[in-house]
Amino acid sequence: MSRFVYGVNPVLEALRVHPHEVVRVLLERGREGRRSQGADRVAHAAAQAGVRVEDVRQGELAHRSRAGVHQGVGAELAEFRYAELEDMLAASSDPALLLVLDGVTDPQNLGALVRSAHALGADGVVLPKDRAAGVTPAAFKAAAGALEHCPVARVTNLSRALEQMKERGIWMVALAADGDRELGAIDLTVPTALVLGSEGSGVRPLVRKTCDHLARIPMSGSLGSLNVAAAGAVALYEVARQRAVPRR
Amino acid sequence: MSRFVYGVNPVLEALRVHPHEVVRVLLERGREGRRSQGADRVAHAAAQAGVRVEDVRQGELAHRSRAGVHQGVGAELAEFRYAELEDMLAASSDPALLLVLDGVTDPQNLGALVRSAHALGADGVVLPKDRAAGVTPAAFKAAAGALEHCPVARVTNLSRALEQMKERGIWMVALAADGDRELGAIDLTVPTALVLGSEGSGVRPLVRKTCDHLARIPMSGSLGSLNVAAAGAVALYEVARQRAVPRR
Repeated sequence: MSRFVYGVNPVLEALRVHPHEVVRVLLERGREGRRSQGADRVAHAAAQAGVRVEDVRQGELAHRSRAGVHQGVGAELAEFRYAELEDMLAASSDPALLLVLDGVTDPQNLGALVRSAHALGADGVVLPKDRAAGVTPAAFKAAAGALEHCPVARVTNLSRALEQMKERGIWMVALAADGDRELGAIDLTVPTALVLGSEGSGVRPLVRKTCDHLARIPMSGSLGSLNVAAAGAVALYEVARQRAVPRR
Repeated sequence: MSRFVYGVNPVLEALRVHPHEVVRVLLERGREGRRSQGADRVAHAAAQAGVRVEDVRQGELAHRSRAGVHQGVGAELAEFRYAELEDMLAASSDPALLLVLDGVTDPQNLGALVRSAHALGADGVVLPKDRAAGVTPAAFKAAAGALEHCPVARVTNLSRALEQMKERGIWMVALAADGDRELGAIDLTVPTALVLGSEGSGVRPLVRKTCDHLARIPMSGSLGSLNVAAAGAVALYEVARQRAVPRR
């Protein structure tokens, strides 16, 4: 099974970073039979990278992208290669920063979280194999190129993966609406894994138990809550912020 | 034109907060002809609120929600009522916190931003009338109930609206990838409006000029950037964080 990415920037990014994984580029002409400027740039980049370009009929990209915003541009890539957790940990920066998603089911949220993780300096993202979104075309689109840079590991047993990280000296910080400490009050300058739960029900009890801290983001709305992608961005930012402050 | 919301929680929230604005609730039975537990809760809440409930045929909610995740539940509401900017400013907390969106075109991003604004204590959200997403069903769904609480004003001339806010002593902080100061280095404990640009091209030049600060969120990825909804959540969090710290 190959994977499909769409939209001008995601396809350009794939051609730039992993041209050898791009099987072919698909372009769709606009109503007047013309290619858009973006499609021209993609065609040029594909030619430079020696990647095959094909014109497709109207509607093909809408179908392949499941009605996504494809901008007349798509590409088939060799299947996404998940990273091995051990490799990810071995290659982590010091102090490490990992994002663990315990059951995020919306691929758009997954993609947005990978994008934030990459932009804010995380070493990688860890997902469980079951009951969670994987790296689908919609995730690729939402990640806006970040999946070409940020490794994603998929593990069979998430609790065991957390134990593995702990053995390497990584602290586990789960985000929970009922967390007993404010995120900003926790020392995030040590090696840290941020653990986020599913959109509906948060971090599962067994995973919570494995964590060192239950952190909450202070809210002020009458019954407000943050979307999981927003909560993840905030938590990643707080880590980056604390690490940028000169220590005493 | 009425508006349409869908999904169990958004419909329950509408029934709870503004029952008089709910024109009717629509329920769709599952494949076995049964209502889901969520639909039962909605039917109960609608009965309590004296709102009409109708069963609709399979596919109707998918059509009305444009293939959104409706969970068998939808509701027609009286049209969304935008707030007046003057009213919003007059009712603002002290120090005020406003979120200004200069051309966010994806209704899902708009909804997610309203959700974050509400959760993190903003007084309201300001949009331009032209070239920007309005409060559509998709925005409602992404806002997860926050649109019932957080006022949204739509203005004809955004620059003039910013001037109006300035006259009230509100500082304008635009987020820009090339901002000259880090967000965390700006005093956000004063009355503040955070200004975010469009997904593609950021804050427009004229709007930038009106702002007091151009702030950037420090990034570490090789060419990373944050989605506008993630950037908004981070900026709102930074304001809340600074305001929660006891001042000297």
